[in-house]
Amino acid sequence: MTGHDPISQHLQDSMNHWGSGTDDPAMQQAMERSIAAHHALATSPGVTFEAHEDIVIVLHPGFELLDMVGPYHFLAAMIGATMHLATTGDVTEPVRSSSGMPITPTTTLDDAPSAPTVLLIPGGETGVLTSDTHAINAIRRLGQNAELITSVCSGSLALAAAGLLEGRRATSHWSVRHLLPGHGAIEVDERVVEDGNVLTAAGVTAGMDLAIRLVARFRGDTYARFLELGAEYDPQPPFGSGTPDQAGPELTALSRDFLAPLEEQLRAP
Amino acid sequence: MTGHDPISQHLQDSMNHWGSGTDDPAMQQAMERSIAAHHALATSPGVTFEAHEDIVIVLHPGFELLDMVGPYHFLAAMIGATMHLATTGDVTEPVRSSSGMPITPTTTLDDAPSAPTVLLIPGGETGVLTSDTHAINAIRRLGQNAELITSVCSGSLALAAAGLLEGRRATSHWSVRHLLPGHGAIEVDERVVEDGNVLTAAGVTAGMDLAIRLVARFRGDTYARFLELGAEYDPQPPFGSGTPDQAGPELTALSRDFLAPLEEQLRAP
Repeated sequence: MTGHDPISQHLQDSMNHWGSGTDDPAMQQAMERSIAAHHALATSPGVTFEAHEDIVIVLHPGFELLDMVGPYHFLAAMIGATMHLATTGDVTEPVRSSSGMPITPTTTLDDAPSAPTVLLIPGGETGVLTSDTHAINAIRRLGQNAELITSVCSGSLALAAAGLLEGRRATSHWSVRHLLPGHGAIEVDERVVEDGNVLTAAGVTAGMDLAIRLVARFRGDTYARFLELGAEYDPQPPFGSGTPDQAGPELTALSRDFLAPLEEQLRAP
Repeated sequence: MTGHDPISQHLQDSMNHWGSGTDDPAMQQAMERSIAAHHALATSPGVTFEAHEDIVIVLHPGFELLDMVGPYHFLAAMIGATMHLATTGDVTEPVRSSSGMPITPTTTLDDAPSAPTVLLIPGGETGVLTSDTHAINAIRRLGQNAELITSVCSGSLALAAAGLLEGRRATSHWSVRHLLPGHGAIEVDERVVEDGNVLTAAGVTAGMDLAIRLVARFRGDTYARFLELGAEYDPQPPFGSGTPDQAGPELTALSRDFLAPLEEQLRAP
């Protein structure tokens, strides 16, 4: 290991985290296997290994944690990418997620890279975000300069409120997707919708499917396949009730009513 | 709304978060629909609505964030459950996850509820955890008094190191699952393995499938189906390479070598 090329540097960082003695010959051999695998991935056909994406994720009060962490898992695994957690508030204040767990931001919407590779808006209590004029203006500005504009769940309604979905095909959480046309977008019932540089995902867990597609776009299919395998992403939903069609009309009506206040807040004026 | 029963209290809290004026008749109507839906869920056949589970999740240095947040999303949605993020270190110190994002603990392994409803160990840089004698002793103590002992990904190797998987059927991330027998457990190739009060999940994303099963166990199938729908959990993995069989031998060998240092650390002495 020279310690100078990016792969060796990455491995060195990992070793420091593992805190493991490399005096052990078995561990030394394991490290060598890992270095060789890094090089094998880097030189796989179609793979871009050295890149430096700026991923800006917006943390707003009551954002849905899994909307953010699902994509984060896959995007942060692109070695060389920088993740920016941009708060709509003060950078010294942790942002409360909808389940209560606070997350510490790394920057603010104003201080985030002004031309990000990816702008991503998670959902959650999105009505709070859409009523924050300063935040919506900042999202518009970032979106206009972003390479890709993306959202998970009801986050697409914030993109719409910022005027970034005008005439675009888009999706959202199933319970608020029908509100998109009121904001100038074209409603599409698909798990991930791509329209030019705008990629929107359906509810919560669809953010993972979106993120894996982004990895493929930036780093190649093999890199994305590698991350799917690493995350053992072969889901087996225990009840198979993840869509209104699957859940049936009764449970869907219950869930829609449960979420009615959010729907009401996101309705176009 | 009386504001005294748990449902009204929950709604009141939500309203405070939404920060929305209820003077608006449309919003008032939406709130009433939501209250009625809460009551409809609470009185659905087989549903337990009022309960107070103590969920203890262990945060260890380099834990895998999605291993934790996937289950957290579903378990924290059980209204009345209390989530405890128990650090292996000092409670004032955020715990670095494997992707770098720090999470603030709510308690320590020593101060967490001594007889939790669920003990959950996420994976990640699990070799650091298994070499922490104090943490492994605390996990053994908590596990012996827990109603359910659970893990995601390589977290099962920490349960094994604590002696909690002796003679038990269990799984783990596909790359380290074969190490379980060396620690006294019986290796099973399933996404979620139940053996008595021990439930182990396969790699990373399998934690969501585990958590939904836990919700069904504590709150009934309808509650779990409701949360699957809310999370729009109808995954569409873009490449379908989430298992070694699906990914094929070449990518699997690459991934296994990539992770070789972790495997080496978790091998039984």
